[in-house]
Order: sequence, then C-alpha cells, then structure tokens
Amino acid sequence: MKKPHLKIAVIGGGSSYTPELIEGFIKRYEELPVKDLYLVDIEAGREKLEIVGNLAKRMLEKANVPINLHLTFDRREAIRDADFVTTQMRVGLLEARGRDERIPLKYNCIGQETTGAGGFAKGLRTIPVILDICKDMEELAPNAFLVNFTNPAGMVTEAVLKYSNVRTVGLCNLPIETKMQIASLMEVDVSKIDIEMVGINHLNWTTKIFVDGEDRTDDILFKASGESKFTMQNIPGFSWDQEFIQSLGALPCGYHRYFYMKEKMLKKQLEEVATKGTRAEIVKKVETELFELYKDPELAVKPKQLEQRGGAYYSEAALNLISSMYNNKKDVQIVNVRNNGTIPSLPDDASIEVNCVISSDGPKPVQITTPMNPKIRGLLQIVKAYEELAVEAAVKGDYNAALQALTIHPLVGSVDIAKPLLDEILAENKAFLPQFNQA
Amino acid sequence: MKKPHLKIAVIGGGSSYTPELIEGFIKRYEELPVKDLYLVDIEAGREKLEIVGNLAKRMLEKANVPINLHLTFDRREAIRDADFVTTQMRVGLLEARGRDERIPLKYNCIGQETTGAGGFAKGLRTIPVILDICKDMEELAPNAFLVNFTNPAGMVTEAVLKYSNVRTVGLCNLPIETKMQIASLMEVDVSKIDIEMVGINHLNWTTKIFVDGEDRTDDILFKASGESKFTMQNIPGFSWDQEFIQSLGALPCGYHRYFYMKEKMLKKQLEEVATKGTRAEIVKKVETELFELYKDPELAVKPKQLEQRGGAYYSEAALNLISSMYNNKKDVQIVNVRNNGTIPSLPDDASIEVNCVISSDGPKPVQITTPMNPKIRGLLQIVKAYEELAVEAAVKGDYNAALQALTIHPLVGSVDIAKPLLDEILAENKAFLPQFNQA
Amino acid sequence: MKKPHLKIAVIGGGSSYTPELIEGFIKRYEELPVKDLYLVDIEAGREKLEIVGNLAKRMLEKANVPINLHLTFDRREAIRDADFVTTQMRVGLLEARGRDERIPLKYNCIGQETTGAGGFAKGLRTIPVILDICKDMEELAPNAFLVNFTNPAGMVTEAVLKYSNVRTVGLCNLPIETKMQIASLMEVDVSKIDIEMVGINHLNWTTKIFVDGEDRTDDILFKASGESKFTMQNIPGFSWDQEFIQSLGALPCGYHRYFYMKEKMLKKQLEEVATKGTRAEIVKKVETELFELYKDPELAVKPKQLEQRGGAYYSEAALNLISSMYNNKKDVQIVNVRNNGTIPSLPDDASIEVNCVISSDGPKPVQITTPMNPKIRGLLQIVKAYEELAVEAAVKGDYNAALQALTIHPLVGSVDIAKPLLDEILAENKAFLPQFNQA
Amino acid sequence: MKKPHLKIAVIGGGSSYTPELIEGFIKRYEELPVKDLYLVDIEAGREKLEIVGNLAKRMLEKANVPINLHLTFDRREAIRDADFVTTQMRVGLLEARGRDERIPLKYNCIGQETTGAGGFAKGLRTIPVILDICKDMEELAPNAFLVNFTNPAGMVTEAVLKYSNVRTVGLCNLPIETKMQIASLMEVDVSKIDIEMVGINHLNWTTKIFVDGEDRTDDILFKASGESKFTMQNIPGFSWDQEFIQSLGALPCGYHRYFYMKEKMLKKQLEEVATKGTRAEIVKKVETELFELYKDPELAVKPKQLEQRGGAYYSEAALNLISSMYNNKKDVQIVNVRNNGTIPSLPDDASIEVNCVISSDGPKPVQITTPMNPKIRGLLQIVKAYEELAVEAAVKGDYNAALQALTIHPLVGSVDIAKPLLDEILAENKAFLPQFNQA
Repeated sequence: MKKPHLKIAVIGGGSSYTPELIEGFIKRYEELPVKDLYLVDIEAGREKLEIVGNLAKRMLEKANVPINLHLTFDRREAIRDADFVTTQMRVGLLEARGRDERIPLKYNCIGQETTGAGGFAKGLRTIPVILDICKDMEELAPNAFLVNFTNPAGMVTEAVLKYSNVRTVGLCNLPIETKMQIASLMEVDVSKIDIEMVGINHLNWTTKIFVDGEDRTDDILFKASGESKFTMQNIPGFSWDQEFIQSLGALPCGYHRYFYMKEKMLKKQLEEVATKGTRAEIVKKVETELFELYKDPELAVKPKQLEQRGGAYYSEAALNLISSMYNNKKDVQIVNVRNNGTIPSLPDDASIEVNCVISSDGPKPVQITTPMNPKIRGLLQIVKAYEELAVEAAVKGDYNAALQALTIHPLVGSVDIAKPLLDEILAENKAFLPQFNQA
Repeated sequence: MKKPHLKIAVIGGGSSYTPELIEGFIKRYEELPVKDLYLVDIEAGREKLEIVGNLAKRMLEKANVPINLHLTFDRREAIRDADFVTTQMRVGLLEARGRDERIPLKYNCIGQETTGAGGFAKGLRTIPVILDICKDMEELAPNAFLVNFTNPAGMVTEAVLKYSNVRTVGLCNLPIETKMQIASLMEVDVSKIDIEMVGINHLNWTTKIFVDGEDRTDDILFKASGESKFTMQNIPGFSWDQEFIQSLGALPCGYHRYFYMKEKMLKKQLEEVATKGTRAEIVKKVETELFELYKDPELAVKPKQLEQRGGAYYSEAALNLISSMYNNKKDVQIVNVRNNGTIPSLPDDASIEVNCVISSDGPKPVQITTPMNPKIRGLLQIVKAYEELAVEAAVKGDYNAALQALTIHPLVGSVDIAKPLLDEILAENKAFLPQFNQA
Repeated sequence: MKKPHLKIAVIGGGSSYTPELIEGFIKRYEELPVKDLYLVDIEAGREKLEIVGNLAKRMLEKANVPINLHLTFDRREAIRDADFVTTQMRVGLLEARGRDERIPLKYNCIGQETTGAGGFAKGLRTIPVILDICKDMEELAPNAFLVNFTNPAGMVTEAVLKYSNVRTVGLCNLPIETKMQIASLMEVDVSKIDIEMVGINHLNWTTKIFVDGEDRTDDILFKASGESKFTMQNIPGFSWDQEFIQSLGALPCGYHRYFYMKEKMLKKQLEEVATKGTRAEIVKKVETELFELYKDPELAVKPKQLEQRGGAYYSEAALNLISSMYNNKKDVQIVNVRNNGTIPSLPDDASIEVNCVISSDGPKPVQITTPMNPKIRGLLQIVKAYEELAVEAAVKGDYNAALQALTIHPLVGSVDIAKPLLDEILAENKAFLPQFNQA
Repeated sequence: MKKPHLKIAVIGGGSSYTPELIEGFIKRYEELPVKDLYLVDIEAGREKLEIVGNLAKRMLEKANVPINLHLTFDRREAIRDADFVTTQMRVGLLEARGRDERIPLKYNCIGQETTGAGGFAKGLRTIPVILDICKDMEELAPNAFLVNFTNPAGMVTEAVLKYSNVRTVGLCNLPIETKMQIASLMEVDVSKIDIEMVGINHLNWTTKIFVDGEDRTDDILFKASGESKFTMQNIPGFSWDQEFIQSLGALPCGYHRYFYMKEKMLKKQLEEVATKGTRAEIVKKVETELFELYKDPELAVKPKQLEQRGGAYYSEAALNLISSMYNNKKDVQIVNVRNNGTIPSLPDDASIEVNCVISSDGPKPVQITTPMNPKIRGLLQIVKAYEELAVEAAVKGDYNAALQALTIHPLVGSVDIAKPLLDEILAENKAFLPQFNQA
C-alpha cells in the first residue's frame, strides 16, 4: 500500500538547480503528494541554501501546493524516515571542478568533470561522502531509495551498490536528452521515441531507435552523422564522420567525442581554457548571476536563465523516476543499476545504464536485444575496468588501484603520464581525500 | 508507424475456444482494429469450423463491429501478409490426447497432456506441424508474430526459436490465473497484483508477490498452503503442506503437484480414469455439448458453458499480448521467450516464462531479482534438459534423444520404464510422426 | 623448495583400510619421504586403532623404512604442522551406516551410504566433524592439504570449499577403477588409458576414452553395454542396455544404476536386505574377521583378505595424489575440486570430479572438451542442487534446506515421502546431529 | 596407437630460421621419428629455399638421422597425409614488414610487426593465406595439427579456430623466454620454474611464479622492476617502474611496454628509425649475411650467428609441442588455443595464450587460479575486441570492421587517426589484400 504522504530529502539543496526541481514537484503534486521536502546543505553553503530556499518557498506559495519546505544543515534530520533521498551536491565546490579541468591539461590529457582524470578526481572526493550518507540512510531510513544525480553518476552508483545496503538508482539526463534530440531530428513528439541504450553512464551507445514503434535505426544513423547534433550542452560539438557512424552501427553519446576524437577535443579544450577559462569558471559566473536573480523577492517562478546552466531535463528525469517508483507505474526509463548479467561482458556487480522497468520495487533492467559487438564491447570494458579500480581507490584510499585506474584509462593511457598526474591530483585534493591520508 | 488495419490468422480456428477469442476481439475493437480475421482449419475439422464460424459471424454482426471474418482451409491464404498468426490447433484431436493420458498409466507414470510422457507425445506430434506453419510465415508474412497457445507451449516456443526465423511468443493462461487466484486470496482487484515468476511453461515458481506495490510474499506463502487453492481447473487440487511451501520459499504452480506429490497424483489419476475416464474423454463430452449449443442460430454471444471448458483467460491473455505489441504499450506480461541469460542457470536458447516488457519490438524479459535457489534450480534444470531433448527428438526424429528425454524426466525416471513406454508412444502415434518413420 | 621430511596425519587411523595405506607409504618411501605418520582416532575406536597400529608398526619394521609411526587420540597434536591430513573416519560407525541403508527402504527408496537418503544422512553426520577438523587445520597447519576420502566425498569437499579456508582435495577410487576396467576390457596396461570424466563424485560420465592416445570412445561404448562390467564392487551389476548406452553417448558410472535402473535396483536391494542383511552388516562381519587377522603378531604385511573389503585402489589413488603434490609432478589425475567454470552448467562453487593437473599448488582442473549434452546435464544439475541443499542443511542444521534436498533427490522425489523420511533420519541420528538440536 | 613414422610439412621452409628447426629434429629423432620432412615455399622464394634446404640436407647427413628431406613448391603435395603442418611464412616478405613499421609512424603511432597498426596490416595479409592452407588441410590431411608460428600468432590462431575445421595450436617463444629470464633472475634451472600466464599472444601477464614448487611471485615482482630485464630481443628495454609493477601485481610481458610506456616507446622508435632504419631493414641485413653463411658447402651445423636473429627458442618451443602431442605426454605448456571459458571475461571463441595440458588430443587449457583483476582485464579486453574486429576484417574484407578495429586499438585510439592510417595501409598493401578489392 503506498504511503499517502511523502518525505523527500534533497542533499545539496542549495544548488542552483533546485528551482527546477521545485517546479517539477509543483507540476506533479497530484501524482506525487510530497508532504515534507527537506533541502539540506553544509554550513559552507548556508547563503546559497537560504537564497534558493526562499525562492523555493515563494514558488510553492504562489503555486499554492501544500508541500512543507524545510531548510536544514542537519542531514540526519532530513534523512530520518525519508521515502526518497536525492543527492546533487558537489564536494569541493566549483573550485575543485576547476582543478579537475586544469590539472590533466598540464599532461596533455582531457580535463573533464565526469570522465578521464578529472572525473576520476571528482569520484575520489565524492564517493566517501555518498557512502557516509548511505550509512545514515541504513540507520534512519532503511527503506528509502537513494536517487543520485551527483557525477560521476555511474561510479557513485557502483560504489553504493558494492559498499552499502541502500537501494539506489543513478540518474543522468543524457538518455532523455538523446531521445529529445532524436525526436527533434525526426520531427515527432518525444513520446513517440523508444531507444535501446547499451553501456554505462556517459559512455553508452544507442543501438536501436524506434519511431512510433517502427525500427528506424539505420535512417537515423545516416542522418545523425555529418552534423553537430547529438552532443550535450557542455561538450564541443564536432561533427561525426558519416562513414564512422555507419561502421559503428550505433549512435555514440556526446561524451564519446572525448574518446573517438581525442586529439581534436584536447586541442579545442586547450584553446578554450586559454581564452575563456575552464568550464568551471564559466559556470561560476552563470551561477553568480543566477543567485542574484534568485534573491529578487518578487521572483516566484523558475527563471528562464536557469536553462542555460546545462543539466536540462534533470528535474524531468528525476521526478519521472520518483513518481514511477511511488506509483508503481512499471514504465520503462533508462537509469543506472546493477548489471547482474544484463550486459554479459561486464561484471555482474558493475553499474550500467540501460532501459529498466520502474516499479515500487525499484528499477529492473530489460533484456538488451542487440547482440554485443566488439566495436562497442572493447571500449566499454576498459572504461568499466577503470571505474572499478577508481571506485576501489576512492573507497579504500588504495594508491595501487588509483595508479592502475589512471594508467589504463584511454584518456590517460600510460604510466609515465598517470603517475605524476595522480600524484598532483592527490596533492591538490588533499583536503577532500582523508581516505588517502591515513597512517 | 503502426498499420491502421490488422490481419490476423487463427490456426485451429474450429476450436471450441474460438467464441471466447471473438468476444475478445469485439470488446477491444477500438484499440485493436482488426480488418480481416481468418479462421483456418484442416478438412477433417470442416464441420466444427463451420459451426463455430457461423456463431462467430453472428457475434460480430450483433456487436456491430466491422471485422471481416474468413473461414478457410487454405492456410497459406490465411497467413499471407498477416500481422499476427495464432495457433490453437490440436494435432491428432482429442483421440490422441486420450492416448497421451492412458499409455503412461500402463507404466505407472502420470499421463498428462502437457508434461511427462503425455506432453512428450503431444510435443512429438505438434512441433513438426508448427515448424511447417513457420515455413509458410517466413515466406508469406516474414514480419508477423506467431502467438502460440498450443501445448506443450514451452517446448513449441523453444522449437520455433531454435529452428525458424519467425518472431514468436508462447502464451499460457497459468500466469494470469495465478494472479487472479492471489487477488482473490487477498481480496483485491487483480490489477493490484504484481508477481515475479521464475521458470518455464507449466513449471514456474512465483517467487515474489506484490499487492499494491508492497511485497507480501511471506504472508501469501503462509496463506497459500494448507488449502486446495492455486491449481489449474484440470489438475486435482491436493492441499500444499504448509511447512513444505514455507521451506520452498515460493509458490509452486498447479503442475508442480505432479512432481512434488507424484505418488498421490498418480493414485488419484488411476482412480479417476478407472471411474470417469480420461480428461480427454470428459472434454470430448463437454465439446460435443458446446457445439450443440453453438449450432443454435439464435445464439450470438459466447455461451456461459464455455467457461467450464478450462482454459479460462486464454482470450484475455492473448488479446492483451497482441494489443500491447500492436499499440507498443510497453507494459509487463508473463510470456514464453528466449532465455538469453535471464535465468542464468538455463541455456541461452531455452524458452522460459517470465515477466516481459511487451512492445512493437516483441517481448523482452525483465531481469529477475530473486537469487536463484537450488530448491528451484535443480528441478527446473532437469525438466528443461528433458525439453531440449524432446524438442530435438521431435524435430529430427531422433530416437536416441527421445529415449534419453523420457529416461531423465522426473515423471518417468528410469530406462526400464522409458524404453517400452517410448516404443509404445511411437507405435500408437505412428500416423502423426513422419519424422520417425523415414528410412 | 620442497620440505625434505613430511608429516602426515590420518584421521580415522583405526580403519581396517589402514594397512593398505601403510603398504603404499612403504612402497613409495623414496619419492615420498614421510618422517612422521600419525594415526588418529577417537577413544571409542581405541581397540581398533591399537590393533591396526601394531600391525602397521610390524609392517614398517619388516620393510625397514624409517617412518615414525604415532598412534594418538589427540587430533590437534596430529594436525600441528602436518603437511597432509587425510580423513577416512566414519561418524557413527557401521551401526549408523546400517540405519542409512535400512531407513530409506521403509519408504521404498534406495538405501545407500553415499547417495540418496542414506548418503544424505551420512553427510549430515560427517560434514560438521570435517569442518571441525578444518578449524584445527586453519589454526595449526594452515598450509597443509586436506585429502578427504570420507563419503559422501563430493559433498564433504564442497562443504570444506565453502565453509573453510583449508586447501582440500576430495578423493575417490571410482575414476581409477574405471580406468582399470577399461584397460581390462581393451586388454592393455592401465597406463595406456586416458579418459575425460564429466560430473561429480559418484555421478560422473566418462565421455571420452583414449587408448594409447587414440580416441576409442565409440568402440568402448559398444563393448561396455550388454555386460555387467563397469560397476563398483559394492553395487549390483545389472547389465547396461546397449541401445541406452549408445543413445547416452557416454559411459555411466556404477552409481548411475541407482538412477537409470531405479526400480530394478530397489527390488534387488529389498531382496538382499531381507535375505543377507544390509551391506553394513556384511562389511561388519568382514571387518571383524580382518581385525582378527590383524591381531596376529606374526602378520607384517597387508593381508590378501583386505582386498575383498571394497575400496580397492584407495591407497593407490591417495598416494599418487600426495606424491604429485609433494613432488610438483604436474601429472593429470581425476579428483574433486571447486568447479570454477570448468563445468559451466554447475555453480562456480560446486565441487566437481574431473581431470586435474596436480602440482605443489594443488589440483587445477583441465578444460573439458566434450560439449555438455542435456542427456548428462539435467541429471547432474538436479543431483548437484540436492548436494548444495544437503551441505547447507548439514552445516546450518537447516530443516527447510534438508526437506527440499530430499524432496528433489531423484531417489526420493516427492514431499510425501521426503518429509516422514527426513523426520525419521533426524530422529534416528539425533546423537550425531547437534546442529539440528539447538534451541 | 601412434604412427611409427611421421610426415611434417613446413610452410615457409625457406626461412632463415629453418636450420634451428632442423637441429631440433636431429636432437629429438629418437622421440620424434620423422620420416618425411617437407620444406615448402613459393616460387619467389626459390633461391632461399634451395640454399637453406641444402644446408638442412648437409646437417641431416652429418648427424646421420634417416629423415627424408623434400624441398617443394607444391604445397598440396607437402600437406597430403601430413601429421603436422607448421607455418612460418611471411606474406609480402620483409619489404611489407618495413611498411608496417614505417606507415604508423607517420601518424605518430607505434609501428610494430605484431601489434598496433603494423600487426594489423600483417594480419590482413597473412590470415587469408593461412585459411587457404587450412582448406588444403581439410581436404588432404584432415587429422593433422596446424602448428602456427606466423605472427600475429594470436589473431591467426583465432581466424583458424573460427573459420576452419582444422585442429590448430598457435605458438610463440615469449612464454618460454619469460621462464628462461625468471630462471636466470633466480639463478635456477628453467625446469624449476612454473608460471601462470593470463592473456593473449603478445599481451599476457605472468600472475603467479613458482620456483621449485614454491610461490615466489612477490619476490620476483620486487626484483623484476627497476631493471631492463623481461623484454624480448626486438623490444627496447626501458626499465619498469617498481611502484608500477607492484601496483599491477603481475609481471607484464615485453610487448606491454608499447602500451604502458606508449610515449617513451614511440619517441625511441622515431629516433631509431631515423638513425638506423626500421627493424625490418636491420633484419634484412642479418638475413643476407645468414644466407651467405648458409651457402658454404662445408657448413653442416646451425651457425651461431642465427641466434642474433631473434626468435630464440622457437625451435625448442615447436618441437616440445609436437613431441608432446605425438607422444601423448600430458605435460603443461603455454600455447594459443580457444578460450572456451578459461578466461571468463573474454569470448568463448577467442584465442588465448595460457597453460595447457598437451596430449595426443591436442592442447587443453588448465584452469587459471588467479582471480581476474580489472587492472589486467580492461586492457586485455579492448585488445581482444580489436583482434576480433581485425580478424573479421581480414577474412571478409570488411572496411567497417577494419576502421573500428584501428579506432579502438590503444596504440591508435581515435577515428581521426585511424581513418587515414587505414586508407594508407589498404593502399600500400593492395597487392596482398584481394579480400578488400572485390567489386
């Protein structure tokens, strides 16, 4: 029997994204009757939490929905008896992200916040904090679901699956955005699009595309190449070579550009950082402007400018997921879950990102029908092996695992780079990596 | 883009079940706009086809739905360009079923039309005919789905999956009936019930039961034992021992009684056959009465008496399935499909019966979350091994495979029984087993 | 570097088999320089240990090999710093075996000391004692190998592999005896015979047979049927049906008769027990006579009569194994080890009995090249599932696992038999089953 | 029964290595009684075949062993009824190897004859020729073993396993050389060394090392780093970083330097080619000198200078293998075979290079006991995926597979490099790649 009223805790509630989430809760109040919504943050984020929290209150009031909004720095209070806990915090703030983007460039490696050496550093900082939240959940809300948005979402999900008993789902807006882009390319409503994705967070291939129930994969592969479409807002949009896409037989995701167009992407990033600064620095400016807007006591809706921030459809994706679990909808969504044989060439305990049936019992993967091709398999496997080692390093503070993780990552690729790069990452993130500083 | 009008071919259209199917098509005409419905049968079934066909016409007319009904003996005409082909024929008619039920009893083995030596004999007769239909489909309707109801449905599905290129789904009313029985036990509407079934056709265990999204498995296992519930209409309803059900940790299906209560069931069957005749003989009487009813030119609805025939919800199950495929519903139904790793302890190319997402791309298994327990695994594996051998025997006319199939079946179990039993089955079914009669 | 001198502990040293073992140590002293040999037994076996121990001393003295023989009731002293520990004890003595053979017969089930309900009871009694020995080994001889002869050897090995850290090898004389029988059939020396066995202890199929490097499987299958050969000394030797053997495509082992010829074997056993008593009773007489012989102070060699006792080649098999490990021979022997994917249709942590390379690092399975056929697979899987449940029951005193184990065993097969049979086994073995008697 | 006399065909018999092979046959004549030895070559190699053939004849004569040596250009005559066929030919001769080494360097990629883009080109040229030989063998010597030395040996073996019915073993001197180097490091005879290797040809990790039966892995990993040891004669010997080796927990092979020290190795290769020319050019000079020596009619033994040629122990490895198969020795050797589950994270039909038991039935992998670590797994999997695609491209002339193969290879790594590089390889090898030149 589903509970008549819900309690939801949003960890990292002071994020600039929060108004989008609030808008989502307002829109869906009928199907998702949230009674208590906790926005939690750390003391260092007090100002942001208060600004965004006040905007949220104004939004709820204006919309006249009876959600009790709580702003708090007491994470345990927020988690106690929650039905869903969502995480969207950023350990080390944008300053750390800036370092994640700059350090690898010194070694001629891509510096990106979710993959390569940058994502690795973010994983080392984030995973221990998430596992700490899980400990609270095991104690205070053992039946709750953890819905994680924090990047690197695949590695974070894998860490939770391996090292806690919390029920979790990892969530990314890339799958929904892919469907949106296909819908736009085919000029149909997104509800008409079904896709089969094979892979892991930020490295998945769209292997089958149905428009209105009809398999249109080949047409779309033909159309998708030679254009700068099919990337994420924060990824440079080099065109895909048509022959390459067709030889691949699947639609790569935006992040694949870092792998398949390594040199070009690195060159572009070096230029951009030299001229405009890192993405972290750009985002920081956007955020400062957003918070200025949020302060306006007249503002009681999500401001349009938030859309430029990136992360479109995150709220959409998150609330679709939560609602399907709450309402036992048994619809199909693409989320991050334990593999358990769904992709037989990855370990059973790996996190993967695939179509799942979403019910009150959580997400369950739907069988993948595209036979696994070595064109996809090899790259997927080496990046997953990297992720396994990175998770192990993050949890145990294991230098050996960390060194091997970076060495085999295709965006690093040799020990002569990996070792000094690792040492610099560990040194620059020392304050956030207690697991490496013991004994 | 889905086709605006559908063509459906029903092989074995002269069956007494047909009025139920017609009723279903009428009820769902809006969501399932069938333009042409072909009832096909063989010459030997002309009388029955005409009786039931005329009733069907009266039903359609009375309901005022514009489905064109075609009665035909030309299977190829019916199949050409069909969207769905359904099979519900009985090779050798009820006479052969009678033999399937009587012969094993002579060897102190259960005689049952879908499992054991009886189901084995039915499989040998049926599979070659189904594969012949598949050849027509490959040529005349390569995009159609074969929706198979004919028993032994699991073996028939496996044969089609292994030996043809036809897209197929095997269908049984047991899963839907199980949900109905649980709904009745829990006094809720069946729409509130979700179950996880693990296994194969007529040998599946319900390992998880959710009522209104809540896991109530333990309660229901407690309630289910000690009562004669949870069986099929045609299976004697001995009570389950409560300690046994709880030690098993799952709800067995009705057919499990033949295995777990072998001696008791055999004794009962021997008594019943001695006093009332075989089930085939009983059914034959029921059918004769039904056809008498069907002849009544005033009758233009499905007669109530049909419900006593067994096979309840078959039409429901079939049309749910066809509609979900046609309408790309992506809902979850329990059907027979290729395993492909869903049950890792069975071969990839085995047919299994599990939750599937049903879309225009066919059924795709949903990952099973109950860890496979040896309590279930061992029996499941030996019966599947039997099925593999029986399918091989049926397709190739391979005596060696046939002998080993019967020898290892738990309802036969030794070569001293299997060999004379097999020889008698082959002799008594000679007319229907050309594959065994070649040079 | 191998140790110059060895310490070996023989648990159950008072066994009537011990003279065979002593003879083996004498013959191989050069390659296997045992310095200290401990025969350990329990107080209840003092008389037997002393008789057999004195004979052993006379044998060593006569052969003039400098092995120090120790007779002891202090198991820990025997185990401390041992290089190899062998187990050949019988928990509950022949009295318990007698019950294992008689109780199942009351339920029309085979009563046999290694398989079926009899072997099950023996497993329940034996496994806790073995695991207790393993605890001592973990503490006192962590690098030693446990070489286990005690039946049911497959289940015992599986229990040690799953529930201890001791390195172990399970050993049976059936594989060597099979090779001997084939050699005799083909009239060549046994050294010319290579076989591939697939399966588990007392249920393995010989799928390939090479004579002098040449594949002669088909010839031998042809010759092997229709004769009473290919059984063990203690198993009635009904002939194999030739058509059956050829349809199987492999040589069954002696114990397969209990499965493939269930009714015939049961009938025979019922007759024999009625006329001659159980095998336990017969063995008891043989043992009494043997111990009378052993007492003779003039006797200083293994008496011929021991060969009638059964268990031929046990010493041969054991010392071949120990010598290959000690001498890092890397030769191929058939022993019981962790599956680990060798037979992909069995669980990774199951014990299996297959060709292994024997080195100082223990036994490592050699890949099986016969594709697994469902003819073999199904029966193998259900018996293994039984074993898994029986091991779980034995270790945890789990009634549920025990009930399901017996229910699915092909020699029991239904709950109506399994439940009263289990209850009687538990009651009659109460003194030896403390794991079932807690709170 | 083994044949009393053997016929062996050596394809590429005019190779400069042949005297080593002849020396081997002479030494082992007693255990390997070759009656007819065929050296086969193509017309273009007539001069070399005659020179080396005449030397071989003088060697046999001097040694006084009754092997009949046949020099021929008729491959089918050589293969007919052969017991073993060995392949050591080089399609396109050293000129093609020179191109394999030079072309990739233009794209800043390693140019090496067995891995990366160079090995890829060699595979495209070689595989069709090998499969052609297999067709002859299927027809003329269906029971013979193909013992393949030709590089890339792993890919060639995989092609034969997938696309022919010939029984084959792929052979490389790297494993034996690794053992030699360990023996030298530990100052013991090589017979005292046992190793466990995990991986594929030219990319395998030594995960366990035993000296005289004792596990000394950790010691040796400690000693192996920081020195330039453990490489092949033709690979620059940069030292391994000690921390890296210990974090890896296994001994990499010489070819791993191309991956783990990519930048350093590329820089070195660019320098060497600029100053000394390619390895092909160096080898060409050595060969010219060797053939001058071979011409000397007084020479009747293998000249010492051959040892500088590289490929040490090839003859040793080859004849060990052939003798173990012929004599059914059942000893353990490391060769290339079908995976079949031995390395569960690679496809079943992949070729792998691991410990095998060698018998008259061919090589059978021994179970690997080191748990597969992601440190090893990821790199192994991506290179194997490359190999699968490269084999497919080589057999089918499939441009798509070829493009994807190069794109994912860690020594190429992006489409912007892979595409022009592939196009140049195809253009420059046009004469040897008929499979890519059809309509």
